Formats: sequence, structure tokens, C-alpha cells
Amino acid sequence: MVLRLDSSSADFASAFEQFISKDRDGGADVSAVVREVINKIRADGMDALAELTQKFDGFALCEANLKITDAEIEIAEKQCRAEDLKALDFAADRIRSYHLKQLPKDERYTDDMGVTLGWRWNAVDAAGLYAPGGRAAYPSSVLMNAIPAQVAGVGRLALVTPAPGGEMNPLVLAAAKRAGITEIYRIGGAQAIAALAYGAGPIAPVDVIVGPGNAYVAEAKRQVFGKVGIDSIAGPSEILVVADGQNEPAWIAADLLSQAEHDPSSQSILITDDAQFADRVSNAVDEQIAESERKEITAAAWHDNSAIIVVGTLDEAPAIVDRIAPEHLELAIEAPEELLTKIRHAGAIFMGRYTPEAVGDYVAGPDHVLPTVHSARYASGLSVLDFMKRTSIIGCDADALARIGPAAATLADAEGLPSHANSVRVRLK
Amino acid sequence: MVLRLDSSSADFASAFEQFISKDRDGGADVSAVVREVINKIRADGMDALAELTQKFDGFALCEANLKITDAEIEIAEKQCRAEDLKALDFAADRIRSYHLKQLPKDERYTDDMGVTLGWRWNAVDAAGLYAPGGRAAYPSSVLMNAIPAQVAGVGRLALVTPAPGGEMNPLVLAAAKRAGITEIYRIGGAQAIAALAYGAGPIAPVDVIVGPGNAYVAEAKRQVFGKVGIDSIAGPSEILVVADGQNEPAWIAADLLSQAEHDPSSQSILITDDAQFADRVSNAVDEQIAESERKEITAAAWHDNSAIIVVGTLDEAPAIVDRIAPEHLELAIEAPEELLTKIRHAGAIFMGRYTPEAVGDYVAGPDHVLPTVHSARYASGLSVLDFMKRTSIIGCDADALARIGPAAATLADAEGLPSHANSVRVRLK
Repeated sequence: MVLRLDSSSADFASAFEQFISKDRDGGADVSAVVREVINKIRADGMDALAELTQKFDGFALCEANLKITDAEIEIAEKQCRAEDLKALDFAADRIRSYHLKQLPKDERYTDDMGVTLGWRWNAVDAAGLYAPGGRAAYPSSVLMNAIPAQVAGVGRLALVTPAPGGEMNPLVLAAAKRAGITEIYRIGGAQAIAALAYGAGPIAPVDVIVGPGNAYVAEAKRQVFGKVGIDSIAGPSEILVVADGQNEPAWIAADLLSQAEHDPSSQSILITDDAQFADRVSNAVDEQIAESERKEITAAAWHDNSAIIVVGTLDEAPAIVDRIAPEHLELAIEAPEELLTKIRHAGAIFMGRYTPEAVGDYVAGPDHVLPTVHSARYASGLSVLDFMKRTSIIGCDADALARIGPAAATLADAEGLPSHANSVRVRLK
Repeated sequence: MVLRLDSSSADFASAFEQFISKDRDGGADVSAVVREVINKIRADGMDALAELTQKFDGFALCEANLKITDAEIEIAEKQCRAEDLKALDFAADRIRSYHLKQLPKDERYTDDMGVTLGWRWNAVDAAGLYAPGGRAAYPSSVLMNAIPAQVAGVGRLALVTPAPGGEMNPLVLAAAKRAGITEIYRIGGAQAIAALAYGAGPIAPVDVIVGPGNAYVAEAKRQVFGKVGIDSIAGPSEILVVADGQNEPAWIAADLLSQAEHDPSSQSILITDDAQFADRVSNAVDEQIAESERKEITAAAWHDNSAIIVVGTLDEAPAIVDRIAPEHLELAIEAPEELLTKIRHAGAIFMGRYTPEAVGDYVAGPDHVLPTVHSARYASGLSVLDFMKRTSIIGCDADALARIGPAAATLADAEGLPSHANSVRVRLK
């Protein structure tokens, strides 16, 4: 049974609050372990990397096999199916063309006091990308993490991905090639994040680290933040579908399960104004779980973390959506544009009945790295801006300084910073 | 004596590397203490806040005196000098008009496959601002942190600032009023950050926390990151001045000391192509330190953390600047525009001989919250974007899905995610 909430029941507010406050993340405190790993890499570099890789990934890492060679990438590409490579190219082109539109503009103007003001954007010099390995090796994530960096103009793109037993997923390597990645290292875990942040052996430090990973990877990113920039800390995936009764139940069930199949901690939520439709979707989900190849994962995510919320009218949906601030939001309704204007917090919104969330995971173009676990309240999906930074520009001549300088000196005095005031006053006649 | 480096000496590379690698931050590990404070606030809310405020700020905090009243703000404003309030208004207007130009644009288009794509920006619902208190209470920082949030359209702006003995700086309260702050709480330290992130007593949780603070505040922001968004972690301030020999030595000395007076861990660096000018600046700095009201701080920052770097020609400057990635960069040279194009990493650049960094601290318009300690490599100054987030928008009709869906299903299959593939295929004819 999946949790069912009805917005007309007396205890809806508290039941809903309890539902969304549930910690799906496990929340084990791995900070001490991660701190130790980072200190080890900082102290012993390549030796520590080899030791930890032997321990966690089960193979003998050395400088000779750390970096994937061009020949290995070529061999990997030949192992891929032509159809998969074609789909990868199709996806890469679409992701690139969407992200090109995100490139920010520089600005420069002279204001009414004669002060020249503006800003300039530049790419970072080097970015590190983390890609999970083993069973959950996702070539699409390599595209989604690397292409924004490539579009931003980052010169050096280093990919780290754990290689259990030394083996790499061929389609991941093919994706890395398409996304302009310049270095690929077969390392993972907190040790890989530390190596990217501080350098280790032949790996030079990077400026920004992005990409999803497990709890250790997430905590390592948190701890190296400040030494390098990072994207958001990724949590378990989620989907919220707002659907009226005019949808095909099997379609909506399929959408709910598309996120449920990621992980037992994933979350799928349906909001509908039609209680009978809710029953039909619930039945369809049960049927599809029964047939699912990933039955255990989907069943756990659906039964433990998910919910169907029945509302009186869809006008109630925006407030509920904003409280959840979902990573993925489908508006499977007749007039999605109207509801869109009333919703403030969501990572990505999928409009209408023919936009299953999965198109956004692969080929639509926008990034699939999106804020999870209510963080769409304050965070955005990955973009070219994560790989760029803005420099402010300020220019005065003697006249402009004469106009704005005195107020600066007054405030510096008020704050007890006389050298600040002096640096202005020495230039005033 | 200040450290002097000459780019023509044989050991310049290693001496420079040693200079910039020095940890100015102290770097004591306060993470365990901070974790305890955060857990205490989460568990005991207002009671914990009162206990910690009694301990660190030395007064009896309760719900009745936690929040500054409108009457208190009115009284505070009357205590301020008219000239200071006028300068504050002047600064606020200029900061507001610069940040208005940063408001990002929404985007929507239909591509050649018939897919509707775009994005929409929204402000966060609530932002928390930290302002240091006591001796280092800076009304300008209140403006610089709050106005971008106000311009972004944030509805709720909560300011926290420690009030040693319960007392607040009147000009800080006046600044808060001008910056549209809706709530002011007399609390500080890691406990204030925890209260903003998780709520405590009457304080409701916010979505984003920004603002500078000491090591405990910085670590608290790091630990609550993920529950809320944060800006960069602030380190000690710094200035880098690139100057030719045609400058007035006393002006450049004043600029170097304007950052040195912040804190003993501040850093001031001069790069010049004129060794005799370097001597003159060095002498001028010594003279100004001798006359300084903040002699101990400026002397410590100058002698312990600063440097004069003499180069053969100013063409060498961009590479050195980029390696330092300074928070503040002055180009006190004849043709700053030319050098500007060659420099990639700096928080803010001050152009020409009449733009002392201090105008940027107060009245120029751009934000004075800037990336410190080499983080301009990857980070930007505070902007309206720190208080907004972007939602991706994706829309397909049946025809568009028929064009892009098959590739999505192919990739989902390749990644072993059959429910993803199914959610697309059920919609294809």
C-alpha cells in the first residue's frame, strides 16, 4: 500500500507535514571518516589513492593505470552498440544547444556620476566531474555534467569514476569523449574528490567539482567546498506528478515508477483531483511493479517513500507543490501554462500529457542534474554558470571620484576604518 | 620589513609559491563544536538560543527581546548623524541601481523538433543575513548583503547580528531599514546560523543564508549547506595593486593599508615594474602605519602577510594576478583596459589611478561581498542570483515526443532503467 492523503481530511496538514519531513537520506554521519580520507590524500597523495582504491574498488592502482588512455577509449567505443552511440550523439547535440543559450552577457556602462561600472564573466580554468561507477554508471550524467562546463569554455575537464576491479563502462567513456573531457581517472569515493581538490600524483587540482555520488562523495564535496567550488549536494531523486482524471493511468504510473526505479530512497508523488483516477493509477503502479525488472527497488521506493494526494480541485496544487519543491514536476493536465504561473519552486517542469520526465533525463536539452529533497526552494539545476564566475568592474576618473568619494569616506569613518577613508581623501583635491 | 620578491631572481617561482600557499586563516578545526551547537538548537530551540547567547554575548535573551522592534529602530535612527544617514542613502541607491541590472531574464522557445524549452527565474521565499556585531559592526555590509535579496524579490529578509550585552549598532539598524529587512534578531555565532536554517522559537526557517562571520559562523554555514543555500565561505580580506612608477606613492600606500586595517590576517600585495617606486611605496606604508589609529592590525597584516613583487615589465602581471586570484585588484596604470583583457581571476577590478578600492566597499554600486583567498578562481561576488533559482521548462506534444522520445528510450535501456524507457514508449504510437 502506498500512503494516501486527502486534502479534505481534518488531519491533512499534519499528515502532509509528517510525510514531507521524513528523512529519506539515511543521514548517517560520515564526516569523520571522510575527513580522515581527505587528510590521507593531502598527506600521501598517490600512495594514499592506491591504498584506498585497493580497499574500496579491489584493484592495484598505480600511475600507469590511473588515467584512461586514448587507446582504451577507442576500444571502449568499438564495444558500444551503434544505436547507443547515435542516441548519445543526439543527446549531446541537444544538451549543448540548450546550454549555449545560458551563456551570460558581460555588461559595461557609465552612470550619471561618470562612474564606469559593469562586470565580466570568465570560465574557471579546470573542472572535476564525479560520475558514479559500477551498476549505476550513467553515460547520460557524464554528458549532463560535462557539456555545461565545455560550453562555458573550461579548458581542462577531469572525470573521476570508480572502476570496480579496474573495469570501466564503455558507454561512459564514449560519453566522456563526446563531452570534451580531457582526462579520465579510474578512482572514486571521497578519495577521488580529495584528489581533484588538492591534487594527487599526476592529478593537478581543479577549481570546481560537480557530479552526483553516494553519502561519502557528498560529504567530501561539502568538506572541500571553499578550496574549490561545488554544485549542490545531491540527495535521492524524486518526481511529483500533477494529473487530472483525463490521463491514461498507465502513463502516469510509468512516470511515477521512472523515478522510483533509481533507488529505494527515491520518492514519487501523485497529486490529482480525481479519487477514482487515483485508484486506477495506484492499480497500474502495482501491476507495473509486478512486471518490473527492478521490482525490489521500485516497490521499496513506492511503498516506503511515496504518496498519492487527492485534492478537491487542482487550484490546491501550487501550494502543495511549493511546499515539496520537487526535483521533477509533471503537469499532466489540460492547461499546464496556467498552473505554471502559480508555482514557484521546482527543479524542472514537464508540461502536458506528452512530456514524461524521462525525456528530460536524456534528450530534451536542459540539465538533468537538478536540486533534490526540497532544495529547489533555493537551488537551480546545473548550468554553465556553475563553471563561470563574474568579475565586477569599477572605474572612476578624478571628477567621478569627487562626486562619489566623500560619501565613501564618511561611511568609512562611521565604521572606524580610517585607512579606507584616507585612500579616498588623498585623491580628492 | 615586508616580504619583497623580484620576478627576475632564480628562486622567484618557489618563493612566490610559498608566499601564496601560506594559510592566513588559522584553520583551527571548529567543526565538532559547531556540530554540537547546531544539534542543540535543533533539539531545544529558543531555550538553547537563550543559553548560548548568555554564554557568548553576555545578556539574558528571551522571546520578548529577541526581535528588534520598530520603535527601537526609530530610536536608533535618531542617534545616527544626519551626514552618516545621507551617505547610507546615497550608497543604498547606488547599490540598488547596479544590482537591478543583474536581474536575469526568463527564456522560452520551440526548437526544430517542436519541443518547447526554456527556463524561469524565481526569488527564494526567505533569506537570512548574518552581520558581525561588536567592534566590527558594518552597516555597509548590511546594505551589500540585503539589497541584492531585496532586488531579487525575496519577500522575507531576516537579519541576525550579535549584540554584546544586548546593545546594537544604531547605524546597522538604520541600514537594515533601508535595505528592506523585515526581521532583525539580536543573536550571533553558530547558534544564529542554526536558528535561521532550522528555526528556533519565533524564528521561522529561511531558504538561503548569506553574510560574513568568524570561523564558527563560516563552519556553521558549511554544515547547514544542503538544508539551505549559502553564499561563499568568507576568509580574510585582501588587495592586490598593480601600479606603474607614475603613481603617487602615498596613494598606493593608502590603498594597500585600506585592506590591511581590516584584520591581522588581511593581505596587501603590490606588483610594480619600478623598483624605486616600490621603495617609495614601502616607505609611505611605514609612515602611514606609524600614524595609523589601527597600528597593531595594519602592521601585523603588512609585515606578516603582505608582499611587494617587482617585475621586469607589467606584461608579467596577468599570470601572477591569476595565480593569486585576488578579492580586490587595482590597476593603477596608464592603460588599464589593455591589462584587463589579459586577466581572468579577480573578484572586482578597480580601473585607473582614481579608483581606490574603498569606493567599492561603500558607494560604487557593485557588491563588496567578494570571493577571498584565491576563490575568485571559481566564485563570484554576491549578486541577485544568490537569492534566485532557475526552473527548467520542457514541453512536448505527441509529434515532438515521437521525434526525441526513441533516443531517450534507447539510452534508458542502455543504462538499465526500463521504467524510464517505458514511460516514453507507452506514449509512442
